[in-house]
Amino acid sequence: MFKEAPAANIISMKTKLPLGYRSAGIHCGVKKYKKDLALIVSDYPATAAGVFTLNKVQAAPVLISKKHLSESETFHAIIVNSGNANACTGDRGYFDSEIMAEQTADILRIKKEEVLVASTGVIGEPLPMEKILNGINMIKSNLIQGDEKDAAEAIMTTDTFYKAESASFIIDGKEVTISGIAKGSGMIHPNMATMLGFITTDAAIERDTLQSLLKKTTDKTFNRIIVDGDTSTNDMVLMLSNAASGVVITKGSVSYKTFEAELFQLLKKLAVDIVRDGEGATKLIEIKVEGALTDEDAGKAAKTIALSPLVKTAIHGEDANWGRIIAAVGYSGIEFDPAKFEIFINGTQILQKNFIVALPNAVANQTLKGNQIELVIKLNEGNESANCWTCDFSEEYVKINGSYRS
Amino acid sequence: MFKEAPAANIISMKTKLPLGYRSAGIHCGVKKYKKDLALIVSDYPATAAGVFTLNKVQAAPVLISKKHLSESETFHAIIVNSGNANACTGDRGYFDSEIMAEQTADILRIKKEEVLVASTGVIGEPLPMEKILNGINMIKSNLIQGDEKDAAEAIMTTDTFYKAESASFIIDGKEVTISGIAKGSGMIHPNMATMLGFITTDAAIERDTLQSLLKKTTDKTFNRIIVDGDTSTNDMVLMLSNAASGVVITKGSVSYKTFEAELFQLLKKLAVDIVRDGEGATKLIEIKVEGALTDEDAGKAAKTIALSPLVKTAIHGEDANWGRIIAAVGYSGIEFDPAKFEIFINGTQILQKNFIVALPNAVANQTLKGNQIELVIKLNEGNESANCWTCDFSEEYVKINGSYRS
Repeated sequence: MFKEAPAANIISMKTKLPLGYRSAGIHCGVKKYKKDLALIVSDYPATAAGVFTLNKVQAAPVLISKKHLSESETFHAIIVNSGNANACTGDRGYFDSEIMAEQTADILRIKKEEVLVASTGVIGEPLPMEKILNGINMIKSNLIQGDEKDAAEAIMTTDTFYKAESASFIIDGKEVTISGIAKGSGMIHPNMATMLGFITTDAAIERDTLQSLLKKTTDKTFNRIIVDGDTSTNDMVLMLSNAASGVVITKGSVSYKTFEAELFQLLKKLAVDIVRDGEGATKLIEIKVEGALTDEDAGKAAKTIALSPLVKTAIHGEDANWGRIIAAVGYSGIEFDPAKFEIFINGTQILQKNFIVALPNAVANQTLKGNQIELVIKLNEGNESANCWTCDFSEEYVKINGSYRS
Repeated sequence: MFKEAPAANIISMKTKLPLGYRSAGIHCGVKKYKKDLALIVSDYPATAAGVFTLNKVQAAPVLISKKHLSESETFHAIIVNSGNANACTGDRGYFDSEIMAEQTADILRIKKEEVLVASTGVIGEPLPMEKILNGINMIKSNLIQGDEKDAAEAIMTTDTFYKAESASFIIDGKEVTISGIAKGSGMIHPNMATMLGFITTDAAIERDTLQSLLKKTTDKTFNRIIVDGDTSTNDMVLMLSNAASGVVITKGSVSYKTFEAELFQLLKKLAVDIVRDGEGATKLIEIKVEGALTDEDAGKAAKTIALSPLVKTAIHGEDANWGRIIAAVGYSGIEFDPAKFEIFINGTQILQKNFIVALPNAVANQTLKGNQIELVIKLNEGNESANCWTCDFSEEYVKINGSYRS
């Protein structure tokens, strides 16, 4: 069970910040004892990009960050509180998020439109603004260069470890760094279930290019992790690019490809860590659907399997129950011939074409031992494939989610 | 908790058959000890209608019953085995289902196209045909008039009680009867999770009218119960109409309205019993979405709430967590203004417009005590409404589904 000691052995957290950034994370009193306010500052004007929740119910910080992204060309700061989501709080909530941006702009002597805002925590309660404004006044003196561990800790809600990653690589003879921090999704206390990611780079990337880069890579990472299918009112991933390295990334160039590959790996690492940290989860599951007619079909099939409570409970119980997997693909809405279906678990084929069971149940079940499961489904219909990450569904998930607030 | 003694106190099972029908249920050996073969016979040629699973993976009996419905005008029998679904069994499975129909036709001296076939049980194993054919030879001598309790028992898999309902009423001065038996859905042992329903009436209803009646009423009953969102390879509801009462039901007539209302009530009773019988379930939940812009929106919102593991675990834990309900509607894909949202639980308003919490949490949680929960969501956007039934999500669900086969 990786839940026992994941952080120490398996998961590396690299908290190095790119050039020209500072960050801080402090306790301001939204939570009782833990850090609850984070600030990331770019000392140079940065371009910014954002990807936001598709939930129709959007929290105030989502609305404000979207507004600022549309109003300003340059950005200098991301201010984030944890402990309170400022969601379903009406006009007052909107006003409060605006004030958070304003106050941050004041202490940094920038414009409020140059500040992006995020919140995560309980829904439906007004922000304790006095504490937050005091916190913003205090946090400036904590800003440090080179590291964002405190910020990574301050955005956590029920996460059991902070998520951070950093990568440096050479483009055109100069070092470029991308860094990111993230917080977890809907396994536990799902009122605090928001998924947040804040990415910084010292490359120079023009606004539209940055947006398309972020959109494309989040689609294949953060949007491919599935915990329980419930999406939050506050989800967002923001990215800043401040040119401090002197390396320019232009669309279609060789360096663009390099940068995209590095960004993808970094986001993937953060996304998988979020799944890993699901309370109650005992197994990290990667689902790969291969041989679909279309890319869309492959994605649909993978997500439907990942969402099936029957598949997730079977894997939890180490039951290589292929009937549930076929049935899930059956109601995913894609076209396929079930007789061509093949299933592999951690490299071992358990189902052959024409419903031929490759192994006795007891042997097949052995493939589900351990805490990392790779489930490969070959549809044998075409050449498209897709993958996603999820975790198993345990009794503990139900226990925790049922007893929240009681 | 109604799980303790539901059958005796709360749930009535009326097993009266309409005129001109006989039924039987016996043990033939697919299961170890329990009844596993059911036969319903109409002594008069009946019209028939069927509604089938939308899963792309369709079991052999689904294919055969659809084929016969398209080939024949009249029907005399429904043969059903439990214990083995005959799904994912390829050409051999198709042939086996055909043989089941043929043998049933032989003993009744009818045509094989006049027989409809259903199966439920484990997936991926061939039917034990010797036992089934012996069973079909034996079952004829067990056929009785007037009652279908044995048949109702013989179609059960992991159901804890059989589901049956019968209603007699007067049309044009004559008594008409509708009866139905059903079996449960995907809470436990979901390889045996098929939902089956077999409805008989002694009214005379022309084929197309019968089909549209069955489609319309199942859409608002069997298709409105949501256990875990996984749909089976074998689901079907079949209906026979044999004219033995002498009452003719024609489309658009007053008697048609009466008949439709009775059929709806009967199917609703069977459907709700299926939800009630979910292993691990402790609460029956009716979700009503009112004030939607369209009928489709209302249905989408209701189903999304019913499918949300976060809502279902919260209700299990008696936590009136309105944020989860709003968030679920938020990702259902419908248009609405969250600030207009109102929530009532068992008649008590817990959320008012503009996110005003109507009651302290501890008081609101009291509305979730007991084993029947009515959750009403008022969107205040339009005039359309929809409802569905589901049950809570318990630790036991996970335990049972994880340890199946182990």
